[in-house]
Amino acid sequence: MPLRVGCIGLGTMGTPMARNLAKAGFELALATKTAAKSKALASELSARAYDSPAELAKSCDVIVSCLPDSPEVEEVHLGPRGTIHGAARGTVVVDCSTIAAEAARSIAQRLAESGIGWLDAPVSGGQKGAIEGTLTFFVGGEEAALEKARPVLAALGKRITHLGAAGAGQLGKAVNQIIVAVNLAAVSEGLAFAQKAGLPMDSLHEALTAGAANSWALEVLGKKMMQRDFKPAFAIKHQQKDLAIVLRSAREKGVPLPAAALVHQLLSALEAQGRGEDGTQALLTLYEKMAEPRA
Amino acid sequence: MPLRVGCIGLGTMGTPMARNLAKAGFELALATKTAAKSKALASELSARAYDSPAELAKSCDVIVSCLPDSPEVEEVHLGPRGTIHGAARGTVVVDCSTIAAEAARSIAQRLAESGIGWLDAPVSGGQKGAIEGTLTFFVGGEEAALEKARPVLAALGKRITHLGAAGAGQLGKAVNQIIVAVNLAAVSEGLAFAQKAGLPMDSLHEALTAGAANSWALEVLGKKMMQRDFKPAFAIKHQQKDLAIVLRSAREKGVPLPAAALVHQLLSALEAQGRGEDGTQALLTLYEKMAEPRA
Repeated sequence: MPLRVGCIGLGTMGTPMARNLAKAGFELALATKTAAKSKALASELSARAYDSPAELAKSCDVIVSCLPDSPEVEEVHLGPRGTIHGAARGTVVVDCSTIAAEAARSIAQRLAESGIGWLDAPVSGGQKGAIEGTLTFFVGGEEAALEKARPVLAALGKRITHLGAAGAGQLGKAVNQIIVAVNLAAVSEGLAFAQKAGLPMDSLHEALTAGAANSWALEVLGKKMMQRDFKPAFAIKHQQKDLAIVLRSAREKGVPLPAAALVHQLLSALEAQGRGEDGTQALLTLYEKMAEPRA
Repeated sequence: MPLRVGCIGLGTMGTPMARNLAKAGFELALATKTAAKSKALASELSARAYDSPAELAKSCDVIVSCLPDSPEVEEVHLGPRGTIHGAARGTVVVDCSTIAAEAARSIAQRLAESGIGWLDAPVSGGQKGAIEGTLTFFVGGEEAALEKARPVLAALGKRITHLGAAGAGQLGKAVNQIIVAVNLAAVSEGLAFAQKAGLPMDSLHEALTAGAANSWALEVLGKKMMQRDFKPAFAIKHQQKDLAIVLRSAREKGVPLPAAALVHQLLSALEAQGRGEDGTQALLTLYEKMAEPRA
């Protein structure tokens, strides 16, 4: 019998993930804040829609949640209508949201008291990875929970890395976000300089990607900067949420992160300009704006 | 008849480049500050050694120089015993040193007055690229000079990108150095955090390189950090020389580079510790040191 899988949160990431789970043949249950959304997707995917996480949880072996931040994850799993009130012992919750490691650990513990398994499994790869089923999962939690949920994760991503107990997945994602954010500044500064220097951008980009300057950020975000495509694949406001978590966590651990903190501040200037919904590659425009002649 | 090629400067980069030119069948002439060095390499490569750039220049069609900084490049080409006093009209100087774009432009102009061609052709790819003949060249200068020197560059690298007139190659390299330096900080901060978080570094590195955090810096320097291999492929002191050039140039152009400037300052702490000869990946140790408990 196929695993019965529930999806809670049907946003940018959750929706394409639900589609891939349906495609993989899982018996699918959906719930999200806006009931109309889960009903529409349920009818598209021949899935069932539920009014609450608790109701959904009653008929699921594995529950995947993709939510904006810790308060939503706590509400969905531990709140009055949370999965904890419906899930049978042995059910596994896989939370793909990016939240603080401490929050993940504390939710895991509460669920464990009811015999419910937990994996924090934040992802890298963005909406594109979610659509194509090529996400990378940073996984924290118990081995047994991972083995039960592995077929579900395998339908969603191409790499599943178990990094330790509950919270370790979030810590791994934090490392990812530090590097992603600082690489973004690297490309923005490099290309802002290149523009002012009047260099031919396409040839330069080709030369840069062939050598020690290469990065995913240069290849993907650099290209978008050059095309002045600032549509969000990963929005500034989401990067900022993640960096805020990271910087708090780093302070607690006693790790100074001057470059990541700088990027957080630079992006906050773009938020102040009302550009929080833009893609992170819009950081380029801040460098341009900083150097505009005064009016 | 094969091109007669001269190599001036036989250090970390110049020596393997001379070897590749010999292998490619060019008639080779060598000169460097330490006469014993050029004599030894000349005998190994069946090349001729010369006492001065001017002497060498007399018998060369193309002259490749790989030198530490602007003063050396000026001395070698324009000084009392410089190539300008020996080279025939139509000779092409290919300077692979990383120097300021303005210095490149001014040397190019002086050489042009004597009918000598010029290319600034700083490289990316490091010693490894020099040994394997897989360098990337950022080229500035006239098309005709590039066409003459192209077979020489083709024997040394896998990518030759012409970015514009004299100086443009240096500007392209500056962009490369901005990105390389900031990517280095990205990896250092990420891995310093990961260590303190107690994550399994090998698994984490695999997961990170599969996604949006990936970069040459993460793959190559990150690996070395994890192995605590701080031997120089690219020494801190060289990165610092390049960043100093970049930051001066950026200020002149009116481009703020806060992240690159931060990395320059962080690396200056390592220089203060006497670690200027270490590889740039030693930046990781600064993060570790900053967070050491007080004695």
